[in-house]
Amino acid sequence: MQLLKDRILKDGKCIGTDILKVDSFLNHQIDVALVAEIGREFARLFAGLGVNKILTIEASGIPMAYATAHAMGDLPLVFAKKTTPNTMTDGVYSAEVKSFTKGTISHVIVNQNYLGPNDTVLLIDDFLAHGEAASGLAEICRKAGAKCVGLGAVIEKKHQGGAEKLRKQGLKVESLAVITSLADGKIEFDN
Amino acid sequence: MQLLKDRILKDGKCIGTDILKVDSFLNHQIDVALVAEIGREFARLFAGLGVNKILTIEASGIPMAYATAHAMGDLPLVFAKKTTPNTMTDGVYSAEVKSFTKGTISHVIVNQNYLGPNDTVLLIDDFLAHGEAASGLAEICRKAGAKCVGLGAVIEKKHQGGAEKLRKQGLKVESLAVITSLADGKIEFDN
Repeated sequence: MQLLKDRILKDGKCIGTDILKVDSFLNHQIDVALVAEIGREFARLFAGLGVNKILTIEASGIPMAYATAHAMGDLPLVFAKKTTPNTMTDGVYSAEVKSFTKGTISHVIVNQNYLGPNDTVLLIDDFLAHGEAASGLAEICRKAGAKCVGLGAVIEKKHQGGAEKLRKQGLKVESLAVITSLADGKIEFDN
Repeated sequence: MQLLKDRILKDGKCIGTDILKVDSFLNHQIDVALVAEIGREFARLFAGLGVNKILTIEASGIPMAYATAHAMGDLPLVFAKKTTPNTMTDGVYSAEVKSFTKGTISHVIVNQNYLGPNDTVLLIDDFLAHGEAASGLAEICRKAGAKCVGLGAVIEKKHQGGAEKLRKQGLKVESLAVITSLADGKIEFDN
């Protein structure tokens, strides 16, 4: 998605070789027109797969997941909540998600009322790095008996390997900007 | 907003006398068509005030804040982040927010790059109870030199007094459903 790649080059900031900050337009301050366009692009990429629910994880995935749900005909949107491990998990599906960036493990949960065998789910998130968050959400779908068809990621950091891992699980992965390197403060895309 | 009140009566659940659960359609699973309508209603209620930025707090305020930003012509949306007290606060505006429901105090922060004297800000949130979250966001606006014109709350629990407190601070407060009592498991609106 050229509009997005241009914006990343203009406003993205590299921190070290692993972190790309896009908080001026994507995950702290949000460019709503850009995110609406992102939603339309995901709707196009995942059309015809019978998706009837969008699943993301709080908080920064919510805007693009909302935009996608809207573009796909106002589908219901569920966001998994982060909670501390060992919190009461009655009535919820849960999974562990490791954050390589923050060095933390969080529990993510979805109320059992909002995901089930009748759901064909598309995962949406802002970043795809090691694929931990998406794997956790896919695990929650399996526990709920829901079908998870794929992941739409706004920005993929290809060198961190998440997309390959998820495709091996049978997911269709579509990333709107695929970054191959952040070395030396320079953002490189795969095409 | 009749559509919202009908939905609250249909799907809302009272827990004790203070908590109204609406997580089947508003803040865990999201009815995207309803939230889009909520955004259009806030855009109508706050038209003509020169609003050029929407501010909310992660995570459950994000969908309705996004919908409002979109309905007001794709305004930039900023969501304040919750963090633990005493975290590094260089380069951010911060405020303390007490949660009566959870019995916790959290720090909320906004990067100084995304709020300033040129901003005329509308706050959006899912709930207005004691007004602590909105007061914290208004404090952040003051620290940034931004003008905060008001708060749009989807559901106000009037008996908890937040709206009155915020109006005394000069804010225009508009709530789409105003609840006066949750006693005996019965949801009562003010009209």
